[in-house]
Amino acid sequence: MGSTVMSETPEITDQLIWIAVDWGSSNLRAWGLDQHDHVIARATSDKGMLSLKADEYEAELLRLVGDWLPTTGQTDVLVCGMAGARQGWLEAAYLPVPTRLDQLSQGAVPPTLTGDQLRVYLLPGLSQTHSTATHFDVMRGEETQLAGLVADSPDFTGLACLPGTHAKWATLEAGAVSGFSTYLTGELYQLLATKSVLRHSVGSDELQDPACREAFIAAVSEIYAAPETFSSRLFGLRAQDLLDGRLPTGDTRGTVLAARLSGLAIGLELSGACRGRPIEQSITLIGNQALCQRYTLALNTIGYQTQHVDGDAAVLAGLQLAHQALKAANC
Amino acid sequence: MGSTVMSETPEITDQLIWIAVDWGSSNLRAWGLDQHDHVIARATSDKGMLSLKADEYEAELLRLVGDWLPTTGQTDVLVCGMAGARQGWLEAAYLPVPTRLDQLSQGAVPPTLTGDQLRVYLLPGLSQTHSTATHFDVMRGEETQLAGLVADSPDFTGLACLPGTHAKWATLEAGAVSGFSTYLTGELYQLLATKSVLRHSVGSDELQDPACREAFIAAVSEIYAAPETFSSRLFGLRAQDLLDGRLPTGDTRGTVLAARLSGLAIGLELSGACRGRPIEQSITLIGNQALCQRYTLALNTIGYQTQHVDGDAAVLAGLQLAHQALKAANC
Repeated sequence: MGSTVMSETPEITDQLIWIAVDWGSSNLRAWGLDQHDHVIARATSDKGMLSLKADEYEAELLRLVGDWLPTTGQTDVLVCGMAGARQGWLEAAYLPVPTRLDQLSQGAVPPTLTGDQLRVYLLPGLSQTHSTATHFDVMRGEETQLAGLVADSPDFTGLACLPGTHAKWATLEAGAVSGFSTYLTGELYQLLATKSVLRHSVGSDELQDPACREAFIAAVSEIYAAPETFSSRLFGLRAQDLLDGRLPTGDTRGTVLAARLSGLAIGLELSGACRGRPIEQSITLIGNQALCQRYTLALNTIGYQTQHVDGDAAVLAGLQLAHQALKAANC
Repeated sequence: MGSTVMSETPEITDQLIWIAVDWGSSNLRAWGLDQHDHVIARATSDKGMLSLKADEYEAELLRLVGDWLPTTGQTDVLVCGMAGARQGWLEAAYLPVPTRLDQLSQGAVPPTLTGDQLRVYLLPGLSQTHSTATHFDVMRGEETQLAGLVADSPDFTGLACLPGTHAKWATLEAGAVSGFSTYLTGELYQLLATKSVLRHSVGSDELQDPACREAFIAAVSEIYAAPETFSSRLFGLRAQDLLDGRLPTGDTRGTVLAARLSGLAIGLELSGACRGRPIEQSITLIGNQALCQRYTLALNTIGYQTQHVDGDAAVLAGLQLAHQALKAANC
């Protein structure tokens, strides 16, 4: 079934107060929480939004967390991510920026359920609609990770980056998202590495390797300085594979060229996201450690300092903040 | 068999002097020429380099042009394109730039044949190897189209662009290619339009439509002015589809967004290829009419004038020039 259930105490049903869920396109993660907001149970499944019809969400949720539920009463379930998309369980309409991150729950919607054990709320994403046609943007799921930054410091101000398939850069001002941009970096890398002419040259990269690290850093620097060369640098990578006698042979060759491709894609993103930002501004990276380390290396290369917040911790903190707001509103 | 043979006179075998062939990755085109270098026969086939093993080229060529051949003697066949690649019929090693375009035949190689009716020469491509790892480039086939420019004016000087899957920009100085760059534009567009998240938003575009034209021009201008925004503009296209109430509905919507995507991809190329070029410099476009019209619109948008040379005419003229040089060398 592609799911795992891990009970941290034998008395989950006695202690469970509510359930937090990050329901993405391709998987979901659920946490059971007690009255102190401590995690007492976890579960994951690969039944993401892309593999479910609207009327299948409730059964999947019950399959995953049914064993945690008290025998009487209703349990709150707070869900962020693609389950709230138009093509998901029920649409939770985007909140337009600027939006305070401690008020995401104001846009939450309750899907109609067949059973009465759960009370589900789907959190909204954020949208950006400027007067010109060129600055439209949306996020769904990442806003809850950003809310995690605000959980500890309500007036958080700064620049946050969430690397990934569609990397998000958000400007936070006094606890609100004032604007954001999405970069297609991860998807661009994947397409180029596996579907383009570069697939003949590119393997999988390993930034631990010194030659890869050097190739990555050089590519970031080149594109940051001259983003207009991105498309020709891509083909240049293929030509380099054909012509460059200094490249290593064997598997290492594809590894070095993969590192270069990664540097080109991330360098293009940084060129757009960091240009004009004061170099003193530290950038908060939210996500898994390996990817954030890669971004840290890239950002250090062009002169920026970073701090890292774990992606899972951030989304859980964001869901907790939203749950507190929901409880306060329902009192 | 995916081939067409069209005889222009009933006496081809009497008049035929030599055969010109453009043998690409996915198809080939052959022309039969008389003593005045007039085309007296044409044939095409979909047996490109990607669908042939090295020992299958001769048979495919004979299948296509066998009927044209005189009953006695040997007929010269001059071939450009991917048939001369390492994975083709026989490798014709790249000539390094700078290279005079009237001297391509100096790098031609004769594959060993089983029969004695033909004398085949495979023309080389061009390579560029700079001292830094970042300016490697190769072309194979396009150099013969460029040679077509030199056929009429041996000291041709100027900037030429060959749009396509891998668009080439070459600087010609007094009949020689002094440098060139390849942009992955066409492949990038195809990948993004058909394999990325944008496939949900993008249809096929029609630059005849005024709304498409407007979207294309706006996208070219935006990226030319700010190439660093390319990756975020890509995702913005998806967000625009989700949010922009001013977009047309129905099929026209995907058409307008496709035109925008095309403008972004071509705009990025022009941003790299034209930056720093004097605006007085007219750019010679070599290729099919529809694609060159699209590039003309893009180049006019950023202030450059263009002239158009038909791609088929150019490659034939280049093959003729190479054949003359080969005859002169063999005398």
